[in-house]
Amino acid sequence: MSASRKLNLNESLLEELKYDGNGLVPAVAQHYRTGEILMLAYMNKESLQKTFKTGNATYWSRSRKKLWTKGETSGHLQNVKQIHMDCDADSLILLVDQVGPACHTGQRSCFYRVLADNPENASEGCAGCAGGDCCG
Amino acid sequence: MSASRKLNLNESLLEELKYDGNGLVPAVAQHYRTGEILMLAYMNKESLQKTFKTGNATYWSRSRKKLWTKGETSGHLQNVKQIHMDCDADSLILLVDQVGPACHTGQRSCFYRVLADNPENASEGCAGCAGGDCCG
Repeated sequence: MSASRKLNLNESLLEELKYDGNGLVPAVAQHYRTGEILMLAYMNKESLQKTFKTGNATYWSRSRKKLWTKGETSGHLQNVKQIHMDCDADSLILLVDQVGPACHTGQRSCFYRVLADNPENASEGCAGCAGGDCCG
Repeated sequence: MSASRKLNLNESLLEELKYDGNGLVPAVAQHYRTGEILMLAYMNKESLQKTFKTGNATYWSRSRKKLWTKGETSGHLQNVKQIHMDCDADSLILLVDQVGPACHTGQRSCFYRVLADNPENASEGCAGCAGGDCCG
């Protein structure tokens, strides 16, 4: 580990990471304790390096075309506990401690809207951890 | 709800969904009970319609360039309980009941590798729900 980094790195795993044609990988921010999925954003090499260095989740804003440290204006920072990579090495999970709500709407998670629902399973009770209330 | 669909739909929300330049949206499959993130894949309009109809998660395989019902060969189907859409309407969570392991490697989740770790937080115990053991 470099002394200038907040996160310990698996360097050889990092070399496997496959960025897409735009130099990006999707990154899912998940609350490290409740398992709630907070948001999905994109990272490039530079945003990943900044995240390793500071410990605060930093993404690449595709709309503003610049680095974006989550919470840099709102104060709703994401303290990164761990980063996981998938078997294809083309997507990431950031396990984070989220300060305040993750969503700019004030909702705790950006995924607060239900697009589809299986009526056969409604009786089972748990609507899933995306709601954050079943496994906290 | 159409009688020919397994899932109830929010039709007006579906109209808001924004596909990327390739007609795709990233979809995160999350275990509906444990909150464990199982995999990240991509859906197009056709795969989403098939998912609504059958209740089994169907993606668009970017490598094979065809519809791909998860588990169609392995039997490791994903029974979709609910689908959530984010505030930007450009990514989805599929809350699923996963039959068998989600990953082709035999791992329960595709995100079994740790790329980075925050040593300051190791003492807190819970390595996050990506491991699936802390909130089941």
